[in-house]
Amino acid sequence: MSEYKAFRVELADKIAVVTINRPEKVNAMNADFWTEIIDIFRWVDATDEVRAVVLTGEGKHFSSGIDLMLLAQVSSKLGKDVARNALTLRQTILTLQGSFNAVDNCRKPVLAAIQGYCIGGAIDLISACDMRYSTPDAQFSIKEIDMGMAADVGTLQRLPRLIGDGMMRELAYTGRTIDGTEAQTIGLVNRTFADKTALLDGVMEIAREIASKSPVAVRGTKEMIRYMRDHRVDDGLEYIATWNASMLQSEDMRIAMTAHMTKQKPEFAD
Amino acid sequence: MSEYKAFRVELADKIAVVTINRPEKVNAMNADFWTEIIDIFRWVDATDEVRAVVLTGEGKHFSSGIDLMLLAQVSSKLGKDVARNALTLRQTILTLQGSFNAVDNCRKPVLAAIQGYCIGGAIDLISACDMRYSTPDAQFSIKEIDMGMAADVGTLQRLPRLIGDGMMRELAYTGRTIDGTEAQTIGLVNRTFADKTALLDGVMEIAREIASKSPVAVRGTKEMIRYMRDHRVDDGLEYIATWNASMLQSEDMRIAMTAHMTKQKPEFAD
Amino acid sequence: MSEYKAFRVELADKIAVVTINRPEKVNAMNADFWTEIIDIFRWVDATDEVRAVVLTGEGKHFSSGIDLMLLAQVSSKLGKDVARNALTLRQTILTLQGSFNAVDNCRKPVLAAIQGYCIGGAIDLISACDMRYSTPDAQFSIKEIDMGMAADVGTLQRLPRLIGDGMMRELAYTGRTIDGTEAQTIGLVNRTFADKTALLDGVMEIAREIASKSPVAVRGTKEMIRYMRDHRVDDGLEYIATWNASMLQSEDMRIAMTAHMTKQKPEFAD
Amino acid sequence: MSEYKAFRVELADKIAVVTINRPEKVNAMNADFWTEIIDIFRWVDATDEVRAVVLTGEGKHFSSGIDLMLLAQVSSKLGKDVARNALTLRQTILTLQGSFNAVDNCRKPVLAAIQGYCIGGAIDLISACDMRYSTPDAQFSIKEIDMGMAADVGTLQRLPRLIGDGMMRELAYTGRTIDGTEAQTIGLVNRTFADKTALLDGVMEIAREIASKSPVAVRGTKEMIRYMRDHRVDDGLEYIATWNASMLQSEDMRIAMTAHMTKQKPEFAD
Amino acid sequence: MSEYKAFRVELADKIAVVTINRPEKVNAMNADFWTEIIDIFRWVDATDEVRAVVLTGEGKHFSSGIDLMLLAQVSSKLGKDVARNALTLRQTILTLQGSFNAVDNCRKPVLAAIQGYCIGGAIDLISACDMRYSTPDAQFSIKEIDMGMAADVGTLQRLPRLIGDGMMRELAYTGRTIDGTEAQTIGLVNRTFADKTALLDGVMEIAREIASKSPVAVRGTKEMIRYMRDHRVDDGLEYIATWNASMLQSEDMRIAMTAHMTKQKPEFAD
Amino acid sequence: MSEYKAFRVELADKIAVVTINRPEKVNAMNADFWTEIIDIFRWVDATDEVRAVVLTGEGKHFSSGIDLMLLAQVSSKLGKDVARNALTLRQTILTLQGSFNAVDNCRKPVLAAIQGYCIGGAIDLISACDMRYSTPDAQFSIKEIDMGMAADVGTLQRLPRLIGDGMMRELAYTGRTIDGTEAQTIGLVNRTFADKTALLDGVMEIAREIASKSPVAVRGTKEMIRYMRDHRVDDGLEYIATWNASMLQSEDMRIAMTAHMTKQKPEFAD
Repeated sequence: MSEYKAFRVELADKIAVVTINRPEKVNAMNADFWTEIIDIFRWVDATDEVRAVVLTGEGKHFSSGIDLMLLAQVSSKLGKDVARNALTLRQTILTLQGSFNAVDNCRKPVLAAIQGYCIGGAIDLISACDMRYSTPDAQFSIKEIDMGMAADVGTLQRLPRLIGDGMMRELAYTGRTIDGTEAQTIGLVNRTFADKTALLDGVMEIAREIASKSPVAVRGTKEMIRYMRDHRVDDGLEYIATWNASMLQSEDMRIAMTAHMTKQKPEFAD
Repeated sequence: MSEYKAFRVELADKIAVVTINRPEKVNAMNADFWTEIIDIFRWVDATDEVRAVVLTGEGKHFSSGIDLMLLAQVSSKLGKDVARNALTLRQTILTLQGSFNAVDNCRKPVLAAIQGYCIGGAIDLISACDMRYSTPDAQFSIKEIDMGMAADVGTLQRLPRLIGDGMMRELAYTGRTIDGTEAQTIGLVNRTFADKTALLDGVMEIAREIASKSPVAVRGTKEMIRYMRDHRVDDGLEYIATWNASMLQSEDMRIAMTAHMTKQKPEFAD
Repeated sequence: MSEYKAFRVELADKIAVVTINRPEKVNAMNADFWTEIIDIFRWVDATDEVRAVVLTGEGKHFSSGIDLMLLAQVSSKLGKDVARNALTLRQTILTLQGSFNAVDNCRKPVLAAIQGYCIGGAIDLISACDMRYSTPDAQFSIKEIDMGMAADVGTLQRLPRLIGDGMMRELAYTGRTIDGTEAQTIGLVNRTFADKTALLDGVMEIAREIASKSPVAVRGTKEMIRYMRDHRVDDGLEYIATWNASMLQSEDMRIAMTAHMTKQKPEFAD
Repeated sequence: MSEYKAFRVELADKIAVVTINRPEKVNAMNADFWTEIIDIFRWVDATDEVRAVVLTGEGKHFSSGIDLMLLAQVSSKLGKDVARNALTLRQTILTLQGSFNAVDNCRKPVLAAIQGYCIGGAIDLISACDMRYSTPDAQFSIKEIDMGMAADVGTLQRLPRLIGDGMMRELAYTGRTIDGTEAQTIGLVNRTFADKTALLDGVMEIAREIASKSPVAVRGTKEMIRYMRDHRVDDGLEYIATWNASMLQSEDMRIAMTAHMTKQKPEFAD
Repeated sequence: MSEYKAFRVELADKIAVVTINRPEKVNAMNADFWTEIIDIFRWVDATDEVRAVVLTGEGKHFSSGIDLMLLAQVSSKLGKDVARNALTLRQTILTLQGSFNAVDNCRKPVLAAIQGYCIGGAIDLISACDMRYSTPDAQFSIKEIDMGMAADVGTLQRLPRLIGDGMMRELAYTGRTIDGTEAQTIGLVNRTFADKTALLDGVMEIAREIASKSPVAVRGTKEMIRYMRDHRVDDGLEYIATWNASMLQSEDMRIAMTAHMTKQKPEFAD
Repeated sequence: MSEYKAFRVELADKIAVVTINRPEKVNAMNADFWTEIIDIFRWVDATDEVRAVVLTGEGKHFSSGIDLMLLAQVSSKLGKDVARNALTLRQTILTLQGSFNAVDNCRKPVLAAIQGYCIGGAIDLISACDMRYSTPDAQFSIKEIDMGMAADVGTLQRLPRLIGDGMMRELAYTGRTIDGTEAQTIGLVNRTFADKTALLDGVMEIAREIASKSPVAVRGTKEMIRYMRDHRVDDGLEYIATWNASMLQSEDMRIAMTAHMTKQKPEFAD
C-alpha cells in the first residue's frame, strides 16, 4: 500500500477504503487519478487480505468528474492529419477506459458511497462498481452531453445494464440532475442513508458482512454476475459448472457446513 | 416535408412533431400509415434542422394498433401451398417490421406522448421510441394475444429490454390493460403528466432541452445506447473509442467548453 | 400423470398444479425432487390439455432449497485425482441444472406461488419460472454464499435478467433475506397477495386467464420472450417472422377474429 | 426488367444474367452502378421466375473496382468540421455497403463468372456472391491498400469467411495480385474454366442445375448457410427447425418424392 | 453395452467401434437408428474405458441417409391446422437433431470411416463427428435438395464450419456428388485410404494413438475445440483458464512428465 | 529498444526483427521470454517507425515451446486447498496468455519465419501472428497432449480459425508432427522457402512490401481482420464505416491518389 496523490487508501477489518482525495478541486479526476486508480486496484486484487472495497470521496462531494485541464491537454497533442489524430485519440480513450476497467474487473466487490456531486466522469466511475449507495441529496448528472460529447469511459456502456432503457436515454440526452432519492427509484443506487456519516457507516457494515463470507464463494459469485452481463444463460450455466468443478473441492464448503451444523460463525482463510 | 394521409407532420424550434392523424378510426394503423412512417423518418434523418421528434396521436387516443382490414388483406393473398404462403407471410412481416425499424434506427431522439388507448401495434410502435411519456389514465395492452398471435412487429422483441422480465410475461400472456401510473412503476413510461395538454407541454419541453445540445453529442449518445442494447460492454467500449476518435475533433467541444468557461448558453450548428 | 414422491401434481381446468410435497422437510430438494421434476415437465410439455402450470409448496414454506444430504452424497463420491473429481462434479452440476432447465424450457407458462421460506436452491428454481407471486411475508435469500459456494443451478445465471444489477449483487454477496414486499419493489415478484389462500386464488386466476387464450399464441409468445433473453433485437425480429410464417396460417386467428367481431368469448383447440 | 446504364440484364431459362456493361471503362463502378445494382437485385428478389443469377462483366475484364471519379466526388463534399465530415462519410460508406448487401441478401443464389481484372471494389462485390468461378488467368487484387485505405464495402468483412486467415492477411496487407489458379487453391473460386466462353458455359450449366431444383428448398438452403455465417450451431439448429416447420408442409416435397419413386425429373412451381 | 437393431457395437483396446448394421437397406436410417444412437453415445460417455469411437457402416456403403419410410410416417401424422402441424414438425425435427447432437456432444473423439455412399442424412451424421476418413471412391452428396427440402439435422449447420463457404454452397444447391479424393481436397475428409480394409486399419490406428493419451487431456482438448466453434477468442482463452484451473492439478501431468523424463510410454488411468 | 535476455531485437528499414535467442536451449520459453515479449510488443506498438515485425528463432530451430522448468515452478507454488490452487493456476494461465495476446493485439503485422522445431508453446505463439512462413522441413506438433494437458495459451483457441476443423482435431488429439509442406497444404503456413536463408530473405521482402504501404491503411486493415475473427458481418460493416469516418480524412489517401495519377511510388509519414 503506497502513498497516492489523488487518493487516500486504508485497510482495516479486511476492507480497503479508497478515498478520492482532492476535496479542494471537488475531487476532479486529474492525471494522477487516472494512473493511481490502476495501481490501487492491482494492489487490491493481489492482496488476499482485502475482501471488499469501499470507494468514496473526501469532503462534501464524491467527484465532479474529469479535470478539464486534462481534456485540454489531450486536445493540445493533436496535429494536422485527421487520421493520425484519430488514432491518437482512440488510444487515449482506450487508456482512460482502462482505469475504470480496473475497477470493473476487480475480483473483490467494490461499494461506492456517494455524497454531494457525482457528475460526468464520476458516473462513469460508479457504473464500474458493484453497488452504489448515497445520501438522499446526492446529485447525479451525465454531464458529458453539455461538453459536446458522448460519454466514453463507461457511462453509456455500463449504465444501460443498471437502469431502465427509457430513463437512461432521458438522462443521457438531457444531462438532467437527479438526487439520491430518484436514483434509488430507478435502481442507480441500492439504498440511501440520511447523511454522509450514516452513509459511510451503512456501507461499511455491508462491506463487513461481505468480508465475513468465504472469499472463494464471493469471488465465484462476482465472476458469475460479471459473466452474465454479456453472455447467454446457457453459456453461463456451462461456465459456472466448469468454475465450480474446482471450487466445490474447497475447504470453505466444509467449514461452512460445519459452522451451519454447529450454529457457529465460520472463519475462512483469506 | 410532404403531405401525408395518416399523419400530420410539423417542424418548429428544431423539433418535428409527428401526429398520427386518423382520430375517427382511433388512429388505427392502415396501409398508408405503414408506408408513410418510413418516408417521415427518412426525412427526419436527412433534415439537419430536426434535432428531436415528438410522436403523438390526434384526438382522445394514441392508437388502437393495426387496422384489422389490413390483417384481413394479408390473409386474402394466401394460396394453397403452405410453404409459399409462409414465404409470403414472412416477407410481409419483415416489411411491416421495417416501418418501426425506421423509428428505432432514427438518428434523432424520438419521444412518444401517449394518451388514451395504446393497444396492440401501438405498443410495438412506442417500444421503438427512445422515451415514453403518458397521462395517468392512458391504457396500455399487448392485445395481440387476443388476436390469436404472438406480437411480431417489435413488442416481444424490444419491450423485454424496457421492462422487467416477470411483468413482461404477465402482460404478454394475459393482455392485461395497465394505466399510465402502473406503466411508470414498471418503467414503461418515464413520467406521467396530468392530462393531454400538460403531457404535450411537458414532452415538448424535454424535446427542446435535447434540441439545445450539440447534435454531434446527441447523435453519438443515441448510437451508443442503441449499440449497447445488443452488444457486450467490451465491444461497446471499443466502439465508442473508434466513434469518438473523429467526434472529439469536433467544433462543438470547443464551443461547449467556451460556453462553460464564460457561463453562456452554447449555440451549436445543425 | 404418474405418482411422485416429492411432488403432488393435479390437472384441472387446463391448469397443472405442481406442489412440492415434503412439508415435513420444509420442502427441501432431495434426490427424488431433482429427477421427478424432469418427468413432470416432460409430461406438461407433451400434454396438450395443459395450458399453464402453477408451481407451489405444500405447507408453510415454498422450499428451503437443496437437501444438505444430497450435497454430502456428492462429496462422498470424490476420489484422489483433482482433475477426475472436477470432471465428476462438472457433470453432477450440469445434471442438476438440467432439472431446472426443464422448467425454463417448458413450452407452457409456469407461475410460481411462494409463501414462507424461499431459500438457496428455491431461488434457483423460481428464477426458471415465467412469473413469480408471493405473500408479503415470504422470505427470499440467496443462501448459497453461506454454504461457501457460488450458486450454480440458475440463480446467478437467470436472476440478473430479472432484477437490477446493483441489488442482484448485494443480495448475492450478502445472502440478505428480503420479504415479499421488497421482492415486489425490485421486480422479483410481480405482485403480493395477503396470505397463502389469497395467493393461490390469485395465481390460479391469472393462470386461468392464460389458459383461455390461443395455445398457439401463448406458445409463440413464450418462445419469443425466451429467445430475446439471449439474442439481439434484429435476430429476434427475423426469428418471429420465420415463426409466424406458419403460425399466422392458424385456425386460431380466424377464431379470435370471429370472436372479436361477434363480441363472444373464443374457444381454442388444445 | 428495366433498362440500365451500367448493366445489361437478361432473363432466360429462369436464370438472370447480370452483366456489368462499361467495358470501355474496364467496368469501373460509377454512380449509376451503385444505385442500379440495388434495383436489379430487388427485381431479382421479387420475380418468382428468376431462380438463379449469373453475375459477369462485359469485355476482357470483370471490373477494375470503384470509379476514382466517385471517390473524388465524396471528398469534395467535405467541410470544415471533422465530426460532421465523419458523420457524412459514415453515411456514404453505409450507403455504398447497401449496394453489395443487396447482392448478399438476395434470396436466389448468385454465381460470379470472372475473367481478366477483378480488382479493389470488384473483390468486395464477388465476396457478396454465393459462388465464384473464373478463368485461370483472371487477376485478383485487394487494391484498396494502395489507395491508402482499408477496404470498407465488404472485402475485409466477408472474405475472411471465404479464404484462410493467413492468406487473407497477406493479400490484404500487400495487395498482391493472384491469378485464377491460385484463387482456386485458396478457395476464393470454386473452379476455373479455360477461357471466357468456357467459363460462361460452365457457370450457366451450374445455374441451370440449381434452377431445376425446388425453389422452396433452394431458398431455405441459402437462408441457412447465410445464417450460419454469423450464428452458433445450436441457434442454427433451432432456426432451421422453425423454418422447416412450415416448409416441410410444401407441395414440393411431395413432388420430389413422387419424382424419386417414378425416376422422373420433378417440375416445381416458381 | 446392449444389443441394438440398427447398430453393432464392439469395445476393444479402449475403442468403441459403432457400425451401422442394415447393409441390406444401404444402412438407411430408420426409427431404430435414431433412438439407438442416443443410447449408444450415452453409454460411450458414461463408460470410462471407452477413449475413442470409430463410426462406420456394414457392407459396401456407409449410409444412404434417412429412411424414406420414416419421412412418410412424419407426414402422415399431420392434421388440418397449419400452425399445429408446424409445432409438431418443429418438435420432430428437434428430436431428430437430438440424435446427432448426441454424437457432436460426445466427450470422446468420434472418427468416421466412410466407404461407398454417404448421402443425405449421412452427411448430417458425419458433420457431427470429430474427423472423417474415407476411401478414394466414396461418394458424398447433400441429397436433401433433391427431396425438395433444406437439410435440417446438421449438414447446413455444421458443414459450413468444416469446408469453405463457396464450395459448401455449390454442393448444397446442386446436390453434386463428390468422391473421396475431392472430399479430401476441400477438407471434408482428413485422408483417404485405398480400400475399405485399409480404411478401417488406418482409422483404428489413429484411434489407438488417441486412446494412448491422457483421457483428461483429450477431453479438455475436445471441449475447447467444440467451444471455439461458436465462441470468441477472448472467451475461449478465459474458458480454458477456468477449465485448466482444475485439470492442471491432475495426476496425468505428473505421469506424463515422468514418462517424458524417463523416455517411457506413459500409462494413464481411464 | 532495450537489451533482452531471451530475445534479440533489431530495427532496420522500418521492420523490427524479433529473434528468440536461446539456441542452446532450442529456444525454449523461459520466464524471461514470457515477460520480455510483452515489453517488446509494447515498444513495437509505441514506435511509429516500426511498420512490420518479423518473428524468428536463432539457430536450427524456431522453438521447442515452454521451458519445462517453468511448468515445474508453477506446480511448486500450489498448496493444500484445491479451490485456492485453482484460483492461482487460473491467474497464472491468464498471465501467460497475456504474453501472446500482446502479439495478437499488436497494431502492426507480425510475420513468423519458422525453421526446424515449432512445438507445443511455439504453435500457440505462431497462432497469434498474422502470417506464417517456413522451410519445407520445419516440424510442427501440438505437443501439449503428450504433457497430459489441453493447450491453454492460444493453440486451441486461435488455430481453429486458421486451419480446417477436421485436421485441427486430428493434430490436437494425436500430437502428430507435420512438416512445412503439409503445413502449407492445410493453410497453417502461407508459403515455404527452400532453406532458412531463403526463408528470411523471402519473409523480409514481404515485410518490406507491407512497410511501403500507408500505415493508416495497414493498421485499419489489420484492425478489421482481427475484428471479423469474432464478430458478425453486419457488425463488421458498421464498424469499418465508423472507423473509416475519420481515416478517409487522411493525408495518405491524397498522397496515394497523387502517386497513382503520376505513376510514382508514394511516400507515407510514419
